[in-house]
Amino acid sequence: MGTVTKAAQPYVAFETSPEQYRHWKLSFEGPIATLSMDVQEDAGLSPDYRLKLNSYDLGVDIELADAIQRIRFEHPEVRTVVITSLKERVFCAGANIFMLRGSSHAWKVNFCKFTNETRLAIEDASQHSGLKFLAALNGICAGGGYELALACDEILLVDDGNSAVSLPETPLLGVLPGTGGLTRVVDKRRVRRDLADFFGTVAEGVKGRRAVEWRLVDATYPTSQFKERVTRRAAELASASDRPASGPGIKLGPLAPAVTEDALRYSSVSLEIDRDKRVANLTVRGPETRQPTTPDEIVQAGDRFWPLRAFREIDDALLRLRLNEPLIGTVIVRTQGDPAQVLAIDETLLAHQNHWLVREIIHLVKRTLKRMDLTSRSFFALIEPGSCFAGTLFELALAADRAYMLDDPERPNNIALSGMNGGPLKMSNGITRLETRFLGDPERVSELLEEAKPFDPQEALEAGLVSFAPDELDWDDEVRLAVESRAALSPDALTGMEANLRFPGPETMETKIFGRLTAWQNWIFQRPNAVGDKGALTAYGSQARPEFDFNRT
Amino acid sequence: MGTVTKAAQPYVAFETSPEQYRHWKLSFEGPIATLSMDVQEDAGLSPDYRLKLNSYDLGVDIELADAIQRIRFEHPEVRTVVITSLKERVFCAGANIFMLRGSSHAWKVNFCKFTNETRLAIEDASQHSGLKFLAALNGICAGGGYELALACDEILLVDDGNSAVSLPETPLLGVLPGTGGLTRVVDKRRVRRDLADFFGTVAEGVKGRRAVEWRLVDATYPTSQFKERVTRRAAELASASDRPASGPGIKLGPLAPAVTEDALRYSSVSLEIDRDKRVANLTVRGPETRQPTTPDEIVQAGDRFWPLRAFREIDDALLRLRLNEPLIGTVIVRTQGDPAQVLAIDETLLAHQNHWLVREIIHLVKRTLKRMDLTSRSFFALIEPGSCFAGTLFELALAADRAYMLDDPERPNNIALSGMNGGPLKMSNGITRLETRFLGDPERVSELLEEAKPFDPQEALEAGLVSFAPDELDWDDEVRLAVESRAALSPDALTGMEANLRFPGPETMETKIFGRLTAWQNWIFQRPNAVGDKGALTAYGSQARPEFDFNRT
Repeated sequence: MGTVTKAAQPYVAFETSPEQYRHWKLSFEGPIATLSMDVQEDAGLSPDYRLKLNSYDLGVDIELADAIQRIRFEHPEVRTVVITSLKERVFCAGANIFMLRGSSHAWKVNFCKFTNETRLAIEDASQHSGLKFLAALNGICAGGGYELALACDEILLVDDGNSAVSLPETPLLGVLPGTGGLTRVVDKRRVRRDLADFFGTVAEGVKGRRAVEWRLVDATYPTSQFKERVTRRAAELASASDRPASGPGIKLGPLAPAVTEDALRYSSVSLEIDRDKRVANLTVRGPETRQPTTPDEIVQAGDRFWPLRAFREIDDALLRLRLNEPLIGTVIVRTQGDPAQVLAIDETLLAHQNHWLVREIIHLVKRTLKRMDLTSRSFFALIEPGSCFAGTLFELALAADRAYMLDDPERPNNIALSGMNGGPLKMSNGITRLETRFLGDPERVSELLEEAKPFDPQEALEAGLVSFAPDELDWDDEVRLAVESRAALSPDALTGMEANLRFPGPETMETKIFGRLTAWQNWIFQRPNAVGDKGALTAYGSQARPEFDFNRT
Repeated sequence: MGTVTKAAQPYVAFETSPEQYRHWKLSFEGPIATLSMDVQEDAGLSPDYRLKLNSYDLGVDIELADAIQRIRFEHPEVRTVVITSLKERVFCAGANIFMLRGSSHAWKVNFCKFTNETRLAIEDASQHSGLKFLAALNGICAGGGYELALACDEILLVDDGNSAVSLPETPLLGVLPGTGGLTRVVDKRRVRRDLADFFGTVAEGVKGRRAVEWRLVDATYPTSQFKERVTRRAAELASASDRPASGPGIKLGPLAPAVTEDALRYSSVSLEIDRDKRVANLTVRGPETRQPTTPDEIVQAGDRFWPLRAFREIDDALLRLRLNEPLIGTVIVRTQGDPAQVLAIDETLLAHQNHWLVREIIHLVKRTLKRMDLTSRSFFALIEPGSCFAGTLFELALAADRAYMLDDPERPNNIALSGMNGGPLKMSNGITRLETRFLGDPERVSELLEEAKPFDPQEALEAGLVSFAPDELDWDDEVRLAVESRAALSPDALTGMEANLRFPGPETMETKIFGRLTAWQNWIFQRPNAVGDKGALTAYGSQARPEFDFNRT
């Protein structure tokens, strides 16, 4: 992970690997991986703050996200991940407050979004890959530290008379525990709401027997027994996991895009920035070489297997865009290649979806598409001749806010569905993008999936699979107008509109975190009571006490 | 409805009645009620704006809410309500923009909350009372006007070549259609999300055949046929309704509280304001006279029947508190009276819950408790000797953020449950407050409901029905400390925390509107791109064009 100073904020790249970690130690012993937090105070993304007491900034979380991903791909033998700390009597003090205080609103929002995605990736690994996470809280565990623990399957807390779990954001900083904390306390751990209310207002937190009785942790053990209990429980969790102990893993090599001022170029993906129009052009190329068809060949190909590589690249491009290109409001999504090749890969993936590596690849594709759903930019898919919006790649069009398909009788242009549109790539709301699209006409989903044929522009329009299908005379003007008029709208209103329209239908803990909790936190992150001259976040750590406007809103 | 100027904003009272309406005409013809919007331009709550083109402010919506309520209680014979306009070629232009522009952030938030509650009350009447609502859009229907139509069961639009439905908030004002608009378009009417995206960005809206095809309206008819079609469809809806045509209705008389600088005093409710502590004391008195036990007696008693009267009073007190007492952060909830009397009334309500009036009373109690859930103030219930937190009134303790119960062996103090805690009074999330409380232990709900006995403080604590049960030595200090420390916290963080902790468990369209949509709108209502000097809401109607900061967040 490298950072290059650019304008007011560092340019952030998201790639890293264990040998580059500054803040975490990752070790393995049979089916148990141990991920130990040991944040280097002076190695934050900015020199403006020191990461004391295992407090973290985005750089620390990028390493955590990388570690979780690598355990899934590189260590199929692992069944339990213990998350603990190497600092004496400190597990984690949470997000670094001086970092938050010095950050722009947009940085705070992006920081929280990424850390939320990382915690959800932990839960995704638990739910779908049989990786059980055990938080071993060897010392104080506050705010974001406790929110990290909440993302684990179980929480063990040392009982040393001092160590507590706490969410001090509201009493100390005038903000929310916004990395899923409030939601997970009541919705995942099912702490009673009145007890959660009390817990959320006492800076010192809750420890010992009360923490167990209130369901805030699963058990506490005296210091003398703690390590042994953690080891024992980690082994129990490992033996209950259904993760296939097959191996070996595959290595996730560096993506190493060519980075220029206006473009990111990967092997199958490019992101080209048009600053004048505030538009980015995201192009995904389908496979160009023969692709593996059996699990053995897929393991052999490793990170060169097209879907794994292409979606890792899309993910990286989206992350860089979010953080480093705030002025780009619209992303035009295109594909290039042979739809038949994409559909052939979908067949391979579906045929072998129970193989551990294929399973991991499918879930990575799923998580990348969720990242797109949660990216606060407008996405327009342009479906043109020569494109390959088929199966898995058609999900890019379904994830887009609109899809335009060129209807030129001279130039054939088709889209196609596959079984990958019918289940494996569920959205945060727990249903597929097709189901979400056709909430008002649910039978159509199975009808369309059964039609194993390509759709030309008029068929696609009729079927409701694309938004508009202008002909060759109208295409340029209609697309240009759509892009230009989008660019003229308030970026804040668009963010709010998209956050509402993209997630109709059922709700899950995940959509609650990004809908309700995040939206309220973003509101609070704008309020003078938090970030004004005398707000609580501003006053923290200084001599000054916060001064509130006590009007309730 | 009276308004008295007080400080910067008018003091708003929420009581009105048809003979006082300025903006609506309510007429009846057999099973059809017609509610016609005819907003008086110069009769807004403030002289600072004119309510042109049937645009509305809070005063207009207070009349609408009153009309819906009265139709339920006073007109049991009504089965269809037609909502239309008396203005030529204009149905409703939405919330008045100059009113919004000139309002404080808190006023905007409160205005939207009340109008959302009114629209949900329309849907509640449809779902639970068999009152079908038909929006007859006789002309342009924009923004909040279309959101009102969306709350109806069906929408008919005149096809005059000009009249369209539209949500111009994002393109014209840089804000969201926040009165449920975005949510209802995709979640209720199930408009495809890409079409909703397009619709939400074009100020001129959508009309004619496209409006029907996209599901934005149910039908369009030429001007020449429109009235006749509306009449016909209203009759069809009426004949399909299961509303019992029994009658006569009962009259909802004025509540007429005694209003002083620091208190509201009703027949069964008082709200006393302690400005120094920023605390309000809400006290509900149980029935003091013999109460009806049969439907005939209940109809006879009418609005003097205790549960109807007491909960209308609570509702009115909460509404006045929200809008007129923004500095009050905490509400202490107490009850006084004989728990046996409250339980006897619960028995009467449950025994006759299929009688139309009893049904209406139960739903009014339910809506009032929802209003409490949605009030952005902290509620602490204090359960002391002499109180009657039993059955329906125990819902006040369940709705509170915490409940403290005095455990003094010298002074008996009990709470009790009834069947009213087991189903009829569901929260916005679709489940009861007991179910919400015990999400982590669902069997306990039925166990507790089966124990038809009072709980003393230790039993209540053990059962998880109260948060804390201090003894007589600790009570004063513990309660004082809880109230004082609450008052010291950031009011914004508390609003956000409570909005998250109060609604664990399932989500509904209602919780989505108040969680996701409202929270995003509140964020946008703070952003300079909307409300700054050059923001779109500020610039609207002036010569100036908005200037945006195009950074995406």
